[in-house]
Amino acid sequence: MIVNGNHYRTIWMQNETVFMIDQNLLPFEFKILESNAYKDTCKAIKNMNVRGAGAIGSAAGFALAQAFLEAPKATFWFYINQAKADIEATRPTARNLFYATNRIMQASQMTNNPKMAAVIESQKIADEDVAACRKIGVFGNELIKENYRILTHCNAGWLAFTDHGSALSPIYAAHRSNKKVFVYTDETRPRNQGAKLTAWEFHNENIPHKIIPDNAAAFLMQQGKIDMVITGADRIAANGDVANKIGTLEKAICAREFGIPFYVAAPSSTFDQECKTGKDIIIEERDQDEVKYIAGVDTAGELHNICICNPESEALNLAFDVTPAKYISGFITESGIKISS
Amino acid sequence: MIVNGNHYRTIWMQNETVFMIDQNLLPFEFKILESNAYKDTCKAIKNMNVRGAGAIGSAAGFALAQAFLEAPKATFWFYINQAKADIEATRPTARNLFYATNRIMQASQMTNNPKMAAVIESQKIADEDVAACRKIGVFGNELIKENYRILTHCNAGWLAFTDHGSALSPIYAAHRSNKKVFVYTDETRPRNQGAKLTAWEFHNENIPHKIIPDNAAAFLMQQGKIDMVITGADRIAANGDVANKIGTLEKAICAREFGIPFYVAAPSSTFDQECKTGKDIIIEERDQDEVKYIAGVDTAGELHNICICNPESEALNLAFDVTPAKYISGFITESGIKISS
Repeated sequence: MIVNGNHYRTIWMQNETVFMIDQNLLPFEFKILESNAYKDTCKAIKNMNVRGAGAIGSAAGFALAQAFLEAPKATFWFYINQAKADIEATRPTARNLFYATNRIMQASQMTNNPKMAAVIESQKIADEDVAACRKIGVFGNELIKENYRILTHCNAGWLAFTDHGSALSPIYAAHRSNKKVFVYTDETRPRNQGAKLTAWEFHNENIPHKIIPDNAAAFLMQQGKIDMVITGADRIAANGDVANKIGTLEKAICAREFGIPFYVAAPSSTFDQECKTGKDIIIEERDQDEVKYIAGVDTAGELHNICICNPESEALNLAFDVTPAKYISGFITESGIKISS
Repeated sequence: MIVNGNHYRTIWMQNETVFMIDQNLLPFEFKILESNAYKDTCKAIKNMNVRGAGAIGSAAGFALAQAFLEAPKATFWFYINQAKADIEATRPTARNLFYATNRIMQASQMTNNPKMAAVIESQKIADEDVAACRKIGVFGNELIKENYRILTHCNAGWLAFTDHGSALSPIYAAHRSNKKVFVYTDETRPRNQGAKLTAWEFHNENIPHKIIPDNAAAFLMQQGKIDMVITGADRIAANGDVANKIGTLEKAICAREFGIPFYVAAPSSTFDQECKTGKDIIIEERDQDEVKYIAGVDTAGELHNICICNPESEALNLAFDVTPAKYISGFITESGIKISS
């Protein structure tokens, strides 16, 4: 990824320190947050300074590696087990947390230098996330033709992973291979991750794009202005049903109505074979204030959190929806394109 | 309509003064704006203190009636013609402006007391708007069953008309006839008229409702939580295609996908026989800052206008979309329900 012309990862570790792009300040301020202890990295996961499946996995791995480096000799494994529990409690529904902590525990137990093993394994987890996302880009790029106008929803870019992203990786790959592409970026209410994070990524990567209200996609499709849709996924059931950010279903239905290919890009770790269909996925209802209030900056650059609705009314805030497999043209993964049955 | 327990119209005239609910302050402040001269009423139309087809029609009629009352004897018709031109220039795409000014000119020219004729005719225009909207409610109420959960988009309530509204009139009628109804209220980005105005109306009328992000409708439909959709219309072509607030098309496509009836409520004046199909309707592209910025109040009640996206990115702001007739179950008008062919 490129920010202000320099290459970054979303999160990385050097010696005992974890560095991460502070996503709570974006797009209004670009700042690298430093954490020198596993407890601070836990806080960063909990406060969503780092968010997104892949990035959380890397953060959890680095946090546990930090714990290995910090742990006092006398109470070594006690300290490690406490750290593991703390890390897993930061965002208990994020599957990547557990994947990372379990891999590091395993690696550290098969060696007589657990500190070094933990550090190496955490680096491997981050590198594998980068490699998988890069490959998603390579495969996804094959679907993108010259001058394609692509719709994306929410942020499944490199900020959600360690680098490259899932849904956005094919777009970056197409851009690097000198294809002309244009991206309609759903603002993605209520948290506006599209308008705030995806648009910020595109601006830094020089990807031509425009932010659109979530209401506008169908009309653009009807006018023949969208050639394909690519979104990410939070979880993919065994039958191909996809849980993703609220609004994904609406875009998928409209895409099928207008005969526009709808692709879901995700690393293999997102496929959950134990979840048979979308009906098994419980949808999180989040705080209504995420709909009623929004944060942004005034012309003086000052941050405000304001109410943007009738204050006495209630709002309903469903975080995700489930898109049935029949609306999905295919899945872009690190091992190739899977056409939906 | 009821506000704080009292009955109001959106706009009314007493002697030389036009009174209107200042819609630019809603939902954060309820204030009646007074205008004592036609030029001030023009300003109120232009600044959108009063907005919505029916309300603009009443405002234009009252403004011209004010001009008749103000006009000096020596230059009477010169003054009137200038006023007519000024009024029609406030929002030149609003057809109701011209309808109102032409009716008043006609009425005033067929009498030897043009001042009184203009005042009476302007009152008639407002009363007819109220009567038509009330009848839309009566007919629309027949479609609403006990415990119906209704989705609506944007604000086609009484704030957009002189009273009752179009899309919301059947809901108010159902509520008054003691049916239990619940309304999912699309917030309706980018200007949030659903969250700001419709929700405010519902709160004042004690209609059970929740605000939802525009992304959520399809998911609620999929879960069987929406029984019908009612929206308003900006213009209806001869073949039944409907131009309305951006996002209407998306809801209509999703409603058909899930077999949910989708009704458009509008007075006859919204049907434009000279417009053959939706393809003849030019869609207004508005200032991108309506997408990039939003106004609201902080916890101290102070109003701010803030940027809610990556500031360097551009946004696309299409004000309306066109819903083909095939997605529409029927039209609710003041002369009954017309089933879409």
